[in-house]
Amino acid sequence: MMKKQKNNGVPMSEENAKKKLEDLGKHMVAEVNKGEGPTFETVLRTKSNIIYDEGVGCLRTGDKKELRKFLSVSQARTFMQTVAIGAKTKKFVNEGLHTSIRGLYYQLKFSLGENLDEDLFTEQSESNALVEDLEVALGIKREDLHLTTDRKGVVAGAMTIEDTFGGEKTTIDCRKQGRSGWMIPSDVDNGMKFRDIEADYVLVCEKDALWQRLNEDKFWKKENCLLVTPKGQASRGTRRLLRKLADEGLPIYCFMDCDAWGWYIYWTIKTGSMNLAYLGRDFAVPESRFLGVTMTDITEFDFLDKLTIKAKDVDIKRAEEMLSYPWINMHKPWVDNLKLVLSTKKKIEQDALQGQRLTFVGEYLKDKIDKKKWLP
Amino acid sequence: MMKKQKNNGVPMSEENAKKKLEDLGKHMVAEVNKGEGPTFETVLRTKSNIIYDEGVGCLRTGDKKELRKFLSVSQARTFMQTVAIGAKTKKFVNEGLHTSIRGLYYQLKFSLGENLDEDLFTEQSESNALVEDLEVALGIKREDLHLTTDRKGVVAGAMTIEDTFGGEKTTIDCRKQGRSGWMIPSDVDNGMKFRDIEADYVLVCEKDALWQRLNEDKFWKKENCLLVTPKGQASRGTRRLLRKLADEGLPIYCFMDCDAWGWYIYWTIKTGSMNLAYLGRDFAVPESRFLGVTMTDITEFDFLDKLTIKAKDVDIKRAEEMLSYPWINMHKPWVDNLKLVLSTKKKIEQDALQGQRLTFVGEYLKDKIDKKKWLP
Repeated sequence: MMKKQKNNGVPMSEENAKKKLEDLGKHMVAEVNKGEGPTFETVLRTKSNIIYDEGVGCLRTGDKKELRKFLSVSQARTFMQTVAIGAKTKKFVNEGLHTSIRGLYYQLKFSLGENLDEDLFTEQSESNALVEDLEVALGIKREDLHLTTDRKGVVAGAMTIEDTFGGEKTTIDCRKQGRSGWMIPSDVDNGMKFRDIEADYVLVCEKDALWQRLNEDKFWKKENCLLVTPKGQASRGTRRLLRKLADEGLPIYCFMDCDAWGWYIYWTIKTGSMNLAYLGRDFAVPESRFLGVTMTDITEFDFLDKLTIKAKDVDIKRAEEMLSYPWINMHKPWVDNLKLVLSTKKKIEQDALQGQRLTFVGEYLKDKIDKKKWLP
Repeated sequence: MMKKQKNNGVPMSEENAKKKLEDLGKHMVAEVNKGEGPTFETVLRTKSNIIYDEGVGCLRTGDKKELRKFLSVSQARTFMQTVAIGAKTKKFVNEGLHTSIRGLYYQLKFSLGENLDEDLFTEQSESNALVEDLEVALGIKREDLHLTTDRKGVVAGAMTIEDTFGGEKTTIDCRKQGRSGWMIPSDVDNGMKFRDIEADYVLVCEKDALWQRLNEDKFWKKENCLLVTPKGQASRGTRRLLRKLADEGLPIYCFMDCDAWGWYIYWTIKTGSMNLAYLGRDFAVPESRFLGVTMTDITEFDFLDKLTIKAKDVDIKRAEEMLSYPWINMHKPWVDNLKLVLSTKKKIEQDALQGQRLTFVGEYLKDKIDKKKWLP
């Protein structure tokens, strides 16, 4: 294993988030005491303020800020809502209790008191956007505010987890999870320790069905890797775990479909997505490499040629879109592969590798890794 | 715990499935040896052959059969496809390897040999339907044919799992899974033992977010239950596990949204769905009870009245549809609740129970169970 990298110097923890919330509150109180209206500065999350950070290799928000004022007819409501979310989530952290953003929304319904006719929030979309504002403004993440997010990734391999949860410590050995694997939770920072990581690298496999195939073949044991599936698009918890594993010095190899969805999953893991660009490097893994499946695989494995599928409009559109992104267009192997999709109008799934024999999937992956045949 | 019930007398196992496949093959060979064309008898899965079995309390296929003949212009292709699927899955069982129905489809692409221009299958939908035919005709399930299915349920509580997989035995204690829980696999029959079940009942919680809430409150520990979330619609593995736990004598209580989707998830667990009626009792839990959320809860808890949502067309339509099913219409509490949805045009989510305080969810459930306040 390589040496550890520093993680931006910012601890991703509830203590840090709580302090940031308190500072925000103190700042507002100070403004009021000075006879001024309270304000709240956040970072613009519009497309015009999303940049590709070449140095780090991920999408992030730029420097454009927005100042929200309480003493403004158009902003008073949003301002009150933001403060209500800050107060409510700080309460969750103090109580040591978690809920989802849906649970937060229902709690906020009563934030002006139970007997008022007017609701502070009428739609959950209102509170969702403001949670994102708080994340980007304070440089924290919602998991640190005790807001749980959808979880769905799975891991097997040489790693041990120490999960301190509700005052109890549990040790989970990812080498001993049988057919199931260990389910990646919403929050992999607070109360979580990843130790005895003896694996040499991480293999991220898009589909759970292929993960099960590789788990049955004991691929992670034979090749000494951590076998992860995000089960489609990676959850926040999975992206954050991959970031932490990369920080431990483990190479991150990705194995996806060669189609619109597979590429999107890969690039979201690697650079983040436009929608979630505000999360920045803490949820991105610029070090990721793409093992396959690629259109150029067809020239190497004859049987695959018979197993391609006609590309759909969404695949063609995505391929064109990707070629227009400078951070993808700068990589020749990606340009070549995407152009091959556009000219042949074909795509190929990772499942197709099982066409001749089920165990070929692992052989294919081992060969790609041994011979360093990956896309950046 | 109550005494064990008998599970239809039919073992759900790969040995049984393999024998059934062999019998089917022998039957065809015998027909050929007699100078007849081989035939294959399956059960009709059309709506006209789906009945509600009052004795058992679940949907199942009726007695209408269909005889497929090889020597028939219209049936020869389907016949060959069915035999190809039988042969291929038997090979999987013999090899001790699993794959998904997508993996099966790719393997079948070559079932006439690699160098033939014609494909035996052109669309996966063809092979999917024939897998269902094989299941219903032979009274087996695809998991026994080494076909993995989507998995997504999670369990925590007083139960230990012995998972023998790929020749290795793993012991997983569902009491010690921290924030994550144990992930319910595709196949809970072959190589799986559920032992040391010390829980008094099973609580099935529709949404993972609420499961996480209850897990954090140690609800399963305090109330000595198995806390399960299907994460929305229950997977085959989760339904099968619930069937097995009910066979162990554990009451199954369900906690769902009061809306179209929540009711559908509940009734699919309880009686099976029209689409999957052919699975019958092996995947249904007629003993299930519905704890809530219900429209009548609003009369009991004032704060909930403020947290109802406008019912959508899909909710209204589903409520009307459910009232038309005799097996639902026979239960007065269901009729009352569904009519309340229709008259108020409102619905309510399980998340709303967190409106006043996050920990209310567990108090609500404990009260419902203690006072036997459930719908059948």
